[in-house]
Amino acid sequence: MSVRVYIEDTDAGGVVFYANYLRYMERARTEALRQAGIDLVAWQREHRRLFVVRSVRVDYRLPARLDDELTVHAHMIRIKRASLECEQPIYRGAERLVDACVTLACIDADRLTPVRLPGAIVAALTDDRERRA
Amino acid sequence: MSVRVYIEDTDAGGVVFYANYLRYMERARTEALRQAGIDLVAWQREHRRLFVVRSVRVDYRLPARLDDELTVHAHMIRIKRASLECEQPIYRGAERLVDACVTLACIDADRLTPVRLPGAIVAALTDDRERRA
Amino acid sequence: MSVRVYIEDTDAGGVVFYANYLRYMERARTEALRQAGIDLVAWQREHRRLFVVRSVRVDYRLPARLDDELTVHAHMIRIKRASLECEQPIYRGAERLVDACVTLACIDADRLTPVRLPGAIVAALTDDRERRA
Amino acid sequence: MSVRVYIEDTDAGGVVFYANYLRYMERARTEALRQAGIDLVAWQREHRRLFVVRSVRVDYRLPARLDDELTVHAHMIRIKRASLECEQPIYRGAERLVDACVTLACIDADRLTPVRLPGAIVAALTDDRERRA
Repeated sequence: MSVRVYIEDTDAGGVVFYANYLRYMERARTEALRQAGIDLVAWQREHRRLFVVRSVRVDYRLPARLDDELTVHAHMIRIKRASLECEQPIYRGAERLVDACVTLACIDADRLTPVRLPGAIVAALTDDRERRA
Repeated sequence: MSVRVYIEDTDAGGVVFYANYLRYMERARTEALRQAGIDLVAWQREHRRLFVVRSVRVDYRLPARLDDELTVHAHMIRIKRASLECEQPIYRGAERLVDACVTLACIDADRLTPVRLPGAIVAALTDDRERRA
Repeated sequence: MSVRVYIEDTDAGGVVFYANYLRYMERARTEALRQAGIDLVAWQREHRRLFVVRSVRVDYRLPARLDDELTVHAHMIRIKRASLECEQPIYRGAERLVDACVTLACIDADRLTPVRLPGAIVAALTDDRERRA
Repeated sequence: MSVRVYIEDTDAGGVVFYANYLRYMERARTEALRQAGIDLVAWQREHRRLFVVRSVRVDYRLPARLDDELTVHAHMIRIKRASLECEQPIYRGAERLVDACVTLACIDADRLTPVRLPGAIVAALTDDRERRA
């Protein structure tokens, strides 16, 4: 997923504010799930299932600047019973600017308690991963 | 209401990003309503009433910078049947940086249609205004 | 310019937070200027000229929701000596959700004082407007 | 440092958007440094020294909601040659909602290369830590 750095994303240091990379990552995850045929809004509305971020590990290697064109990845590298691990490096051309790993959990939208990943989602993600491999 | 400018609020121009003043204004409105005894979260939960912004007029006179200590006002200057007008100038010390006027409407949280301002809210705002006058 | 509503843009009301439409508008203005051949970053770096927002008028007619695909316009409707007026309606399909008008001024990046719009920028915008007409 | 959750911080899930906790942490770090007598803006302006985030580790245990009053910590737990480790748990009352560890590096603001932590900053942080112990 390609992302342009706009002035809203930068801070007074002239570079992208560190929290804003997490916004890019969330966009890329949503698009990756959409491409795998998973519509999060429908899952919430119809099945009361929500994906929430459980943990984030980010290493900032090089700063992105105003007007940069970035590529934000979202690779589902591990699919577990109740959680997903998503690798999300960010590149500017061939340069890797950011390394990140985001763990998502599936919860019940009403009781906010963890639940198993729905079978249909596991199947869609597994198919998608095989198609790309 | 006093607001400190943090790096998250600034952009690559070294000043507060123009949309972020609207975040400050929202905080100041929430606090002004709270001080008038109006709890918006409770109104939404219990009475399904939501306040939404209908219009915004902002004149940016001078930029705020990193680390500035700002004062953000929220004066309910006009209380109408289904809307409120809130004047929200922003100062740095005696300097007026921003002039703003925000119109809020009351809507039904489920049908998202405009409704009359609840009597209790009108009364609380009117009392609050008289107390300050 | 097309914009997708991501979870980062929404608030607890389930709709796009009112300040975030201004972020969309800024992206659309930047792209409109880029398409007219105007590179704001280069203007700042090489000529120390900055465009800043002087005023904003926004009418929120209908809320945008998570996952909506929006179209954000940026029409330079008036080109004056030291300022530009930009009309920025936002649509979801044929529905107009937001009406907005943004006034930009050109300033000296070092002294932060207003200056005349550079001739090259006026020419580029005028050409661009005629090409579209 | 105490932080109120405003509508700007929440997302359509009704909870604080995961990237926004990093904004709270940045505010708490800035205040912690200020209390230790370190003015980051002055360090940038006068000495061309900038603190940048090198890595972030966040575990989201429980969500914060609209109107919550949070306490955001910033404990400098390790002071090294060119970097600082800052522990930043976030609480709502006695409940720990978020665990976080942020590593900061000191860089030259012009060349954007890592440099040693200035002695005055190390001394101020060490004094501050002893005072609190």
